[in-house]
Amino acid sequence: MPHEVLRQAKQEFLDWDGSGFSMLETPFTGDAFKKVLHQARDDLRELLNIPDNYRILFMHGGASAQFSLVPLNLLGSARSVDHIDTGYWSSKSLREARRYCKVHVAASSADSQYDHMPENWKLSPESAYCHFTSNETANGVQFHQIPETGGVPLVVDMTSDFLSRPLDVSRYGLIYASAQKNVGPAGVTVVIVRDDLLGKAHPATPTVFNYAAQAEADSMLQTPVTFSVYLAGLVFRWLRQQGGIATMEQNSLRRSSSLYQVIDDSNGFYCCPIQHGHRSHMNICFSTTNDTLAPVFLSEATSEGLMYLKGHPVMGGMRASLYNAMPDTGVMALIEFMRSFAEAHRYDI
Amino acid sequence: MPHEVLRQAKQEFLDWDGSGFSMLETPFTGDAFKKVLHQARDDLRELLNIPDNYRILFMHGGASAQFSLVPLNLLGSARSVDHIDTGYWSSKSLREARRYCKVHVAASSADSQYDHMPENWKLSPESAYCHFTSNETANGVQFHQIPETGGVPLVVDMTSDFLSRPLDVSRYGLIYASAQKNVGPAGVTVVIVRDDLLGKAHPATPTVFNYAAQAEADSMLQTPVTFSVYLAGLVFRWLRQQGGIATMEQNSLRRSSSLYQVIDDSNGFYCCPIQHGHRSHMNICFSTTNDTLAPVFLSEATSEGLMYLKGHPVMGGMRASLYNAMPDTGVMALIEFMRSFAEAHRYDI
Repeated sequence: MPHEVLRQAKQEFLDWDGSGFSMLETPFTGDAFKKVLHQARDDLRELLNIPDNYRILFMHGGASAQFSLVPLNLLGSARSVDHIDTGYWSSKSLREARRYCKVHVAASSADSQYDHMPENWKLSPESAYCHFTSNETANGVQFHQIPETGGVPLVVDMTSDFLSRPLDVSRYGLIYASAQKNVGPAGVTVVIVRDDLLGKAHPATPTVFNYAAQAEADSMLQTPVTFSVYLAGLVFRWLRQQGGIATMEQNSLRRSSSLYQVIDDSNGFYCCPIQHGHRSHMNICFSTTNDTLAPVFLSEATSEGLMYLKGHPVMGGMRASLYNAMPDTGVMALIEFMRSFAEAHRYDI
Repeated sequence: MPHEVLRQAKQEFLDWDGSGFSMLETPFTGDAFKKVLHQARDDLRELLNIPDNYRILFMHGGASAQFSLVPLNLLGSARSVDHIDTGYWSSKSLREARRYCKVHVAASSADSQYDHMPENWKLSPESAYCHFTSNETANGVQFHQIPETGGVPLVVDMTSDFLSRPLDVSRYGLIYASAQKNVGPAGVTVVIVRDDLLGKAHPATPTVFNYAAQAEADSMLQTPVTFSVYLAGLVFRWLRQQGGIATMEQNSLRRSSSLYQVIDDSNGFYCCPIQHGHRSHMNICFSTTNDTLAPVFLSEATSEGLMYLKGHPVMGGMRASLYNAMPDTGVMALIEFMRSFAEAHRYDI
């Protein structure tokens, strides 16, 4: 999370807006919290230029809950959905959807170890929607172009690159993103859903996880995750002050390009398995050509204060995550370390 | 929440345990957070003397989600459940359960406007469990004795009096409590479930809301509400430092008795509709005999810094909530105000 936001939250931690109370204790039924939630929603609408026929929900449960809640809410009378299989997270969402209906894999890059995002989607006209994952954090691959899908509603898990680049919301039926990457702290999940997709929930859907019911109740059908919504609102406000989403896109392009450059210029010392044009601007996954150097790299990086560089357990190697709150100085320090490390170990490959 | 806890959380807000990171940003997959979660779980087990054959889960979704998740997880092959109807919250849980199965109302105090907790429960042997609400926040009524239920597992929504009095966990099949009363901030719900009730989930249960799956994954099947779990852990630690649950019970008895005394000694100026022996030690609901004085009471109380005294919208009147974190000084100030107000308006009834 941005340091400015954390500092503000700390400053008003015991006394929010002169109320004498902590936002942690403010009742969600009072005007104070409602104002916070509405401001957050309106700021998000402005940041992403979200059309009026889309509802913005702040839900409990994380993105993994949405893996179930999307089919429960959107399947309606359809019996199948389309999924695009692009790596670790899309596989998880696909497996969960299979618990509710037939899943047609409309495109997959599994055969090439998820080294790119598939462009040729074979959609089924009878499917309720087509689900994909915009950015795969474990694999380091990201969609930079979305194929036309005609009338099939697009549903996207945008958890890991939400708010990192401009977005034409009108192309989507539903967008969901849990907060803990670019929005704020874990606990709240943003759901942006087109009006006409509401009202089809399966009878077994828990009422508090029914999109239509939460849209009707302004995301306050039960106590929302108040502190997370408040912090998300501070992040949205910070984003606007930074110049909005366009600035975030410039930042992530600049930072990710610099890191990929170090990898590509390392004469094979580092390697990134992802095809050019499909590489993630959020999660730069790479390894040392000599596998045995990876633990040395991680250990030395930690000593230098460069934390959380270990790759996802299923992938191994290294991963640099460049979420919005990452400052340029952090990226610069990593680049310097990577160059020094490669220089120091250039005879070890 | 206790001021000591809020102060500690503020102090380490930007630098948790010397890590240089905020707990808001600490990844749940790292050892630091796992230690926090395990400590919270172990402290809770010790506070309530929870037997080994019970699992402690920290779940997303709030207590209202449990209204659906309990039948989804526990119904199994049974086709009915028993519910005790005691007021606003039990009615909500009952309505939600009806979406999943036949609900047999085994006891109800609706006929007497929920002025007591029914003692004569007519349980159905074929029901999967019997659900009740230990304390009704809107009505101000609380169970002080639980009837014997034989072999039928007892399921209790303990959200509003959890950790306020000692508890024989072995009498229950499942206990749930969302955090925002006595545990911590909204976002996390504690579920304590007996081992043998796991593994019966309905196929439509979202995986992240499957008790057995979360028990297996140590409540980390998806990113937990990390900051809420951390704060809950601080509250559990604070409770131990205060002398544990017995101290909380003494506090709530002392504070609630003092308030009820003011009401009962007011010569009919104030009235509490709840029968003696059934009155809540957490939520003291009362009104002025002259209805027109209620808005005056609330307005003058607010001017004196006595906040959040408005009764639940469905009940009207006034309500003083005495959750664990409420200090004696707050109760004393309210008592003094109530006496002065009654004195000033004694001719207005």
